[in-house]
Amino acid sequence: MKLEFKEISSADKVAGKKAAAYIDTLTKPPGSLGRLEELAIQLAEITSETFPSVTPPGVLVFAGDHGIVEEGVSAFPQEVTGQMILNFLNGGAAINVFSRQIGALFNIVDVGSVSDIPSESLINRKVRKGTRNFLKEDAMSKSEAEEALLSGYEEAEKMIHQGTKCLIPGEMGIGNTTSSSAILAVLSGKEIEALVGKGTGIQTDQMIHKQKVVKMAIEARNPDRNDPLDILAKLGGFEIAGMAGAMLAAAAYKIPILVDGFISTTAALIAQRIEPNASDYMIVGHQSAELGHAHAVEELGKAPILDLNLRLGEGSGAALAYPILHAASLMIAEMATFENAGISGKN
Amino acid sequence: MKLEFKEISSADKVAGKKAAAYIDTLTKPPGSLGRLEELAIQLAEITSETFPSVTPPGVLVFAGDHGIVEEGVSAFPQEVTGQMILNFLNGGAAINVFSRQIGALFNIVDVGSVSDIPSESLINRKVRKGTRNFLKEDAMSKSEAEEALLSGYEEAEKMIHQGTKCLIPGEMGIGNTTSSSAILAVLSGKEIEALVGKGTGIQTDQMIHKQKVVKMAIEARNPDRNDPLDILAKLGGFEIAGMAGAMLAAAAYKIPILVDGFISTTAALIAQRIEPNASDYMIVGHQSAELGHAHAVEELGKAPILDLNLRLGEGSGAALAYPILHAASLMIAEMATFENAGISGKN
Repeated sequence: MKLEFKEISSADKVAGKKAAAYIDTLTKPPGSLGRLEELAIQLAEITSETFPSVTPPGVLVFAGDHGIVEEGVSAFPQEVTGQMILNFLNGGAAINVFSRQIGALFNIVDVGSVSDIPSESLINRKVRKGTRNFLKEDAMSKSEAEEALLSGYEEAEKMIHQGTKCLIPGEMGIGNTTSSSAILAVLSGKEIEALVGKGTGIQTDQMIHKQKVVKMAIEARNPDRNDPLDILAKLGGFEIAGMAGAMLAAAAYKIPILVDGFISTTAALIAQRIEPNASDYMIVGHQSAELGHAHAVEELGKAPILDLNLRLGEGSGAALAYPILHAASLMIAEMATFENAGISGKN
Repeated sequence: MKLEFKEISSADKVAGKKAAAYIDTLTKPPGSLGRLEELAIQLAEITSETFPSVTPPGVLVFAGDHGIVEEGVSAFPQEVTGQMILNFLNGGAAINVFSRQIGALFNIVDVGSVSDIPSESLINRKVRKGTRNFLKEDAMSKSEAEEALLSGYEEAEKMIHQGTKCLIPGEMGIGNTTSSSAILAVLSGKEIEALVGKGTGIQTDQMIHKQKVVKMAIEARNPDRNDPLDILAKLGGFEIAGMAGAMLAAAAYKIPILVDGFISTTAALIAQRIEPNASDYMIVGHQSAELGHAHAVEELGKAPILDLNLRLGEGSGAALAYPILHAASLMIAEMATFENAGISGKN
């Protein structure tokens, strides 16, 4: 397979400048809406429109399993991935609740869970039943990594064709903080100890074991840090690949991407390394409580919108940040100008 | 006038504990929704319900003018207060946009603007046309302060009877950061220099002048720091009194209060000093960029939800935080439990 994606242009700085000038005519002290003004400008840069719309958002959750869980790195058993897919399908997970709140289109893609879930609502793009244990062998082959990327790309493309104006990629996969920590360690060159955290809630001794596993696995796999596909194949998860592919599609279509927590930001870094312009289209929804997330966000060069001590994943923190992005777009579209409202300027 | 308000009980810690226990049964790693879980628990304490509702919210904007603007403390001329009231009535201000976004009931109360605005949509509770210049004389008499407090109380009570389940008090009043800084200095005992900021955007030399004005005014008025009504009358604004009254009503009816920025938090402190239990019902929506706000929030003993470098007022930051509070209530109401969803627990 050879990946052939639509070209991703850099952000439209001219549109951003136009939006910034217009925002200064709105009935408020200049700059007084702080981050909201910056977000409105970024939305203009992304969409090339002075009055960008972000409704409806689209939440696209990728699920996959991880062979590395054999090494005892997770707080929950592997069967939870499949059980949570069912929970997503039944509308009972946090991401379902927040997706309904924001009026999002919602889809779940099985890119690699070990479970067989017969449901017409589940998008089946399963590459294989879980990655291989990357302490012992490559998590996936290059062509499997490409297939997962392409699945993400195509499913996001479909959602965009259905009208999605803001992509919120989410994930589920027991073991995926281990995979993300390994990827981030290679991409950033930072110490493992700063990047391996407690995931869904392991104890400190298990975390120290998890750090050792990640360290040994990176040495054993020895991925080329300048080749994102090599890193993804050797250490990745199918859901991480799917999210990265989805982000590349959104960037190609000039759709803003709300990045969630640790796994999502790792996928964002993979997308950025595949196509550097992609990060122009990314906005990090929140600062996660998961240990490595701050490093991942720094590596991506972004500032999160929210900081609510969340560490759930699924896209939940990004969905919670969406109303702020929506407010930024409404501010520029709906506020009166000083001139229209007949309001005096500064002394 | 003698103020006779409905009694305000302390928060219902038993209801909070029940909610906390229930939250731990929801399909997510325990604690993984961080601040959202704390907010859901606080909502339970406020409302005495395990499944509290915060819809619809009610935005109640109080407008008033300030005699102290004669001293050259503001970036905008006094006429802007009336012009902005018109903007609120026409739906063009930031708070209108964000109120519509969150589906809020919306009212504007003129408690003391200098303008005559003939409009059936404007609630006229004008105590007088602007406060007196508190550098030279008391801003208002005690009975005027009581009248403004009562107006706020009664207008909030009306909104609550109309179904409001979360109160978002807002304000407009050129000069009101000066009044708030003075009130906060007396309440907190902190240095003026830490509390007087640039408001809507004055330059540094004008800010130094504003600091001097506040310092001289406090010496001249010499309010009793243990008497919130004395402080309010001598240094206050009618809109600050209105907001404080509205907050007391919400607390009395066990309705959560989303506190906005510097002016709003100062009003919250006045309400708390009148009735200490009132602060149990308060949630600070955001950390404002206005210099004194962090001190006001600290004095109130709260942690803001958002930090977006906002400094607009009007209730805008609280309205922007509302979707997070809403999400907290939806989380507890709509998420599946581990048992219902048939999901395995931790290893």
